[in-house]
Amino acid sequence: MPSRTVHLALGPDSYDVVVGHGVLADLGATLRTHTRAASVLLVCDAALPDALVRTAEQSLAAASLRAARHSVAASEPNKSLHTAQAIVEAAAAARLERTDAIVALGGGVVGDLAGFAASIYRRGIDIVHCPTTLLAMVDAAIGGKTAANLLTPDARLLKNMAGTFHQPKAVLADTAALASLPPRHLRAGLAECVKHAMLAAHAGDPDLLAAMEQDPPAVAASSLAPAATARLIDLIARNAAVKARVVERDTTESAGLQQRPAPNHDAGREALNLGHTFGHALEAMQHISPDADPAHAPLHHGEAVALGLVAAAAAAESLGQIPADSTARVRRLLDAIALPTRVAALPDDATILAAMMDDKKVMGGRLRLVLPWRELGRVRVAEDPPREAVAAGLAAIRAG
Amino acid sequence: MPSRTVHLALGPDSYDVVVGHGVLADLGATLRTHTRAASVLLVCDAALPDALVRTAEQSLAAASLRAARHSVAASEPNKSLHTAQAIVEAAAAARLERTDAIVALGGGVVGDLAGFAASIYRRGIDIVHCPTTLLAMVDAAIGGKTAANLLTPDARLLKNMAGTFHQPKAVLADTAALASLPPRHLRAGLAECVKHAMLAAHAGDPDLLAAMEQDPPAVAASSLAPAATARLIDLIARNAAVKARVVERDTTESAGLQQRPAPNHDAGREALNLGHTFGHALEAMQHISPDADPAHAPLHHGEAVALGLVAAAAAAESLGQIPADSTARVRRLLDAIALPTRVAALPDDATILAAMMDDKKVMGGRLRLVLPWRELGRVRVAEDPPREAVAAGLAAIRAG
Repeated sequence: MPSRTVHLALGPDSYDVVVGHGVLADLGATLRTHTRAASVLLVCDAALPDALVRTAEQSLAAASLRAARHSVAASEPNKSLHTAQAIVEAAAAARLERTDAIVALGGGVVGDLAGFAASIYRRGIDIVHCPTTLLAMVDAAIGGKTAANLLTPDARLLKNMAGTFHQPKAVLADTAALASLPPRHLRAGLAECVKHAMLAAHAGDPDLLAAMEQDPPAVAASSLAPAATARLIDLIARNAAVKARVVERDTTESAGLQQRPAPNHDAGREALNLGHTFGHALEAMQHISPDADPAHAPLHHGEAVALGLVAAAAAAESLGQIPADSTARVRRLLDAIALPTRVAALPDDATILAAMMDDKKVMGGRLRLVLPWRELGRVRVAEDPPREAVAAGLAAIRAG
Repeated sequence: MPSRTVHLALGPDSYDVVVGHGVLADLGATLRTHTRAASVLLVCDAALPDALVRTAEQSLAAASLRAARHSVAASEPNKSLHTAQAIVEAAAAARLERTDAIVALGGGVVGDLAGFAASIYRRGIDIVHCPTTLLAMVDAAIGGKTAANLLTPDARLLKNMAGTFHQPKAVLADTAALASLPPRHLRAGLAECVKHAMLAAHAGDPDLLAAMEQDPPAVAASSLAPAATARLIDLIARNAAVKARVVERDTTESAGLQQRPAPNHDAGREALNLGHTFGHALEAMQHISPDADPAHAPLHHGEAVALGLVAAAAAAESLGQIPADSTARVRRLLDAIALPTRVAALPDDATILAAMMDDKKVMGGRLRLVLPWRELGRVRVAEDPPREAVAAGLAAIRAG
């Protein structure tokens, strides 16, 4: 089955994202081509199937690379500086030198932490990302953001509050890794694809939303049959390209840092935060469940983003800045993918708003929201949006 | 008393180092000029005199900057990722935003940790360094290296093994801060000045060594009288300029990363590591004392560097690559400053060599040493130097 390659043009930090079935077998050769590593620390999600880890290790051995393995229990509470430190210590124990490399094999948590560790070990060594979740393939593994969460003394979880910008030398997205992924995880990844579709006009792909609406991606087991896999590879590559184009324009997310921003302004890389200020607040609430079954709480990141996309559309619609049927349209697409668009047991608006104010994008104590603008497919940053718009957003996702 | 300014030309990361008596009073104005901060986290060495911290806080208040204070117990064992995390958490507790800043007020440990925290909090906010030790003024606060040590499971302290490159927005070196510094600390700072003199030909100042030999800097209390202070300001500024010129040529220390380096090659920024591979190994040995009094163990960083400079000169001399009187000349200058040039109770060569192999500069499992080359004032990197040269270096610093 053919693979697809998406190039990120970032000057000396340029690299390729290779999407395909079985591309993990090329890991060793990829390191030989794009790094000078002789030794590698393979940082794995502890829950990965053994076969996947073996594929990676065999590929490294075949390329005569020494490899040590370090496993990480991937969860948001464990996405800490403490866990990152353990990776750095494992790199030191494996005596990695400045020209050696770390390989991240796992989802967003593993990639963000391993990337962070690589960016600080000996003040920066190379990293290659091998994302194993759909979310990481279309989003987290691309663009060089690394991160750990912070926990405040009063137990607030501040998402991705510590981190660096550290571009990988290569990204290998092996769709074979998705076979073992529960449907709920696959659906969560599709939420980021819907997000990309809602801003793809900025990335030269204005038709992505219509394409997804016409033919919503399925996540049943049958979606991993060969024909479906080819479709999935196309979808991942198209989404990777959206992310790539946005990152190329504003790599360190500086577009929003002007001295006196207009009330609505170009979002730059911050566009990718669409749905995330609402979403991060919901994700931090441990009791919220996607389907009112408490056993399914808390929300996965992608589920929280799906709700955030509905809320962002509803907020923009309440401000009259997008057509009146836009929220319904977003909800319809998410429904088709079986992502949540309303949830029960949300706290009152003031509590949610307080959680939103912890967001990294807050500046000068003012809320900032990425909202759809003019049409679905375009966004802008709303500086200090009216509370009524936030309330309209939250009302749109309250069940019952 | 006039202040002196040294400019670092690093493109968009350019900044000034201002050296003078009382310049800390300009901290608030400096932040207003060179950052967009509204809030500041002041990271202080816990041992600083209250008056110094008050000067900084009053200057911030006078510039209408909100300030929170976070104290750090400055020691090598405490120079950890754990301590850096506490600074990041303090920044979050103070709700610092992406355009806010951290101010480091202290010596090298505080500056390295606060700089690291600033480089990772929200993926990087501004830092202003206010070094309060001579060592930090001439070396650590300039050039953007941030760092924490790692402790291995078998209790080896790996110096500066984690960190980032993060240039400050400004450096304010207030010589008034030196008044409270014990003479031993001042002398340790002068070791880095001797190091600079031994490589200053690469920084356009080939006469620095002769100038220091002719008129060795004193560190008695009288050295802080006005006339002596003016001399000290000149010495600090001249040393800051040496560091600045070396950093400008090779900011991220990449000169030594060629695929197949010559046995002796241009050191780039790594030149500043002169004496440090020997020195770091000695510094990690907790029982070594500068004067055979066990109560004075372990060595201060600068004392270890002084010994490392003697060892590097002796190694280079044994290789015949510098004149035969060079080691004696280095020893004479260090003696005049009352820095140690021999110590008792050193372990055997093999033990010291093993500690040197932990150095960050080791590549391909081969030792790399910055050694004087042709004349005192120039250096090169020796790749995998003969063991006999290392032994000659160690023999030169063994007492008794």
